[in-house]
Amino acid sequence: MIFIGERISGSQPQVYQLLLEKNKEEIQKLARKQAEAGAAYIDLSVGTAWLRPAETMVWLVKTVQEAVNTPLALESRRIDVIEAGIQVCKNPVLINSTTGEKNKLASFMDLAVKHQSSIIALTMDEQGIPPHAVGRVAIAKRIMEFADGYGLPRDRLFIDPVLLPLKFSQSQGPVVLEAIREIAGERVPPHIIVGLSNSSQGAKGRRLINRTFLTMAMACGLDAVIGDVLDADLMEAATMAEVVLERHPHADRILRRIKK
Amino acid sequence: MIFIGERISGSQPQVYQLLLEKNKEEIQKLARKQAEAGAAYIDLSVGTAWLRPAETMVWLVKTVQEAVNTPLALESRRIDVIEAGIQVCKNPVLINSTTGEKNKLASFMDLAVKHQSSIIALTMDEQGIPPHAVGRVAIAKRIMEFADGYGLPRDRLFIDPVLLPLKFSQSQGPVVLEAIREIAGERVPPHIIVGLSNSSQGAKGRRLINRTFLTMAMACGLDAVIGDVLDADLMEAATMAEVVLERHPHADRILRRIKK
Repeated sequence: MIFIGERISGSQPQVYQLLLEKNKEEIQKLARKQAEAGAAYIDLSVGTAWLRPAETMVWLVKTVQEAVNTPLALESRRIDVIEAGIQVCKNPVLINSTTGEKNKLASFMDLAVKHQSSIIALTMDEQGIPPHAVGRVAIAKRIMEFADGYGLPRDRLFIDPVLLPLKFSQSQGPVVLEAIREIAGERVPPHIIVGLSNSSQGAKGRRLINRTFLTMAMACGLDAVIGDVLDADLMEAATMAEVVLERHPHADRILRRIKK
Repeated sequence: MIFIGERISGSQPQVYQLLLEKNKEEIQKLARKQAEAGAAYIDLSVGTAWLRPAETMVWLVKTVQEAVNTPLALESRRIDVIEAGIQVCKNPVLINSTTGEKNKLASFMDLAVKHQSSIIALTMDEQGIPPHAVGRVAIAKRIMEFADGYGLPRDRLFIDPVLLPLKFSQSQGPVVLEAIREIAGERVPPHIIVGLSNSSQGAKGRRLINRTFLTMAMACGLDAVIGDVLDADLMEAATMAEVVLERHPHADRILRRIKK
């Protein structure tokens, strides 16, 4: 399972405050904690409140890289913000994210290929987010073909079938699970990822929703997630799901170790 | 989700002791607690230690029926023990269980049809338990056809793809999940059930294994389970999995209620 730690996000008021103050120490602490908790990537988002977001992203990348060697996911809707960040990154980057909209997809794929980045692509396009799995899978297939055309290998493509909050759209669960299952059934499947915390937005019991959805999605083929790696119950559930799927290298030790 | 409460089992030393003492009060307490926790059936097993197991089963059925109106699952390898129990049951019974062995299947199906019972059938036969999903699904199909021939409707047939302990057989997870998925894909699927606590036998962290496997199996199509309904974390995970699958009638209320 590929975990992308979501905690350094300027859309969170506390983190926005840290960015305003240029509080290196606290940002680096958040980076270290997520790296130690098992993040394969640390997501960096400056949020939307900045006059010059690219400058803030560059500062953020440099700050986090002083603290950890973990690869970074750079999150923005603006390609210039992501490119500014990539240029100061030491490790290969995960671009977060493009959609299936033609123009956007083309420019983001260019960027990914140019910088040997991986890229997250959401299954939405000019018409929005298809309500059913079949529409999302169709966009996923278009994105995959597009990526093939650019020479981007499937293992650097992360398809995100767009997990909306269950509280506001109860049908999201079955739709996203079905989309995951379909995409995972491709002959050469890409990575499949969701923004897990979206599932529980606005609901009570967020952590229970998150970890329940995660294990169910893993059973359907999910192999990457943007989420709260500092939630120990979530990480424990994910570890056990990997054991169940016979995908954890230390399964024998784990089945002996955990005491509950 | 159909929960079968596993707690009244004579193979548990404490319960065996209660049966020896004919301790009505404690047995009835176990029955009431499981009924209150949401068991759709309460499983009754006298274990294998008895000279006259049928007499003990009859006593057990009568004792539990004095306390609760919940339907009963009667568990034994011996058909005479189950039939003795059925004859004193007020509600329709779930027979636990037959295998796909020809002679056994025939006599157990006869019994189920004669008494309007439901029945659990394990995907194993004269050759044992097939190591891979394809073999278990093949037996499941044979059992379904057999049941059709007896006029037993699919909604009274519970197919159990045989969940062995993960600790001793790591491949069990993917094999059973795949078998569940295949059987759930039938045009008229039967119920699909597992003995959940088997998954964690001999392992540390049993409750975590149980609830993780359960939510993953539900994502693949499991709709019934024999397990520990008194494990509140298990029940909470199952409830949330039903919400994710859009199968819970009170999903809106639940997404608002749980505080974690």
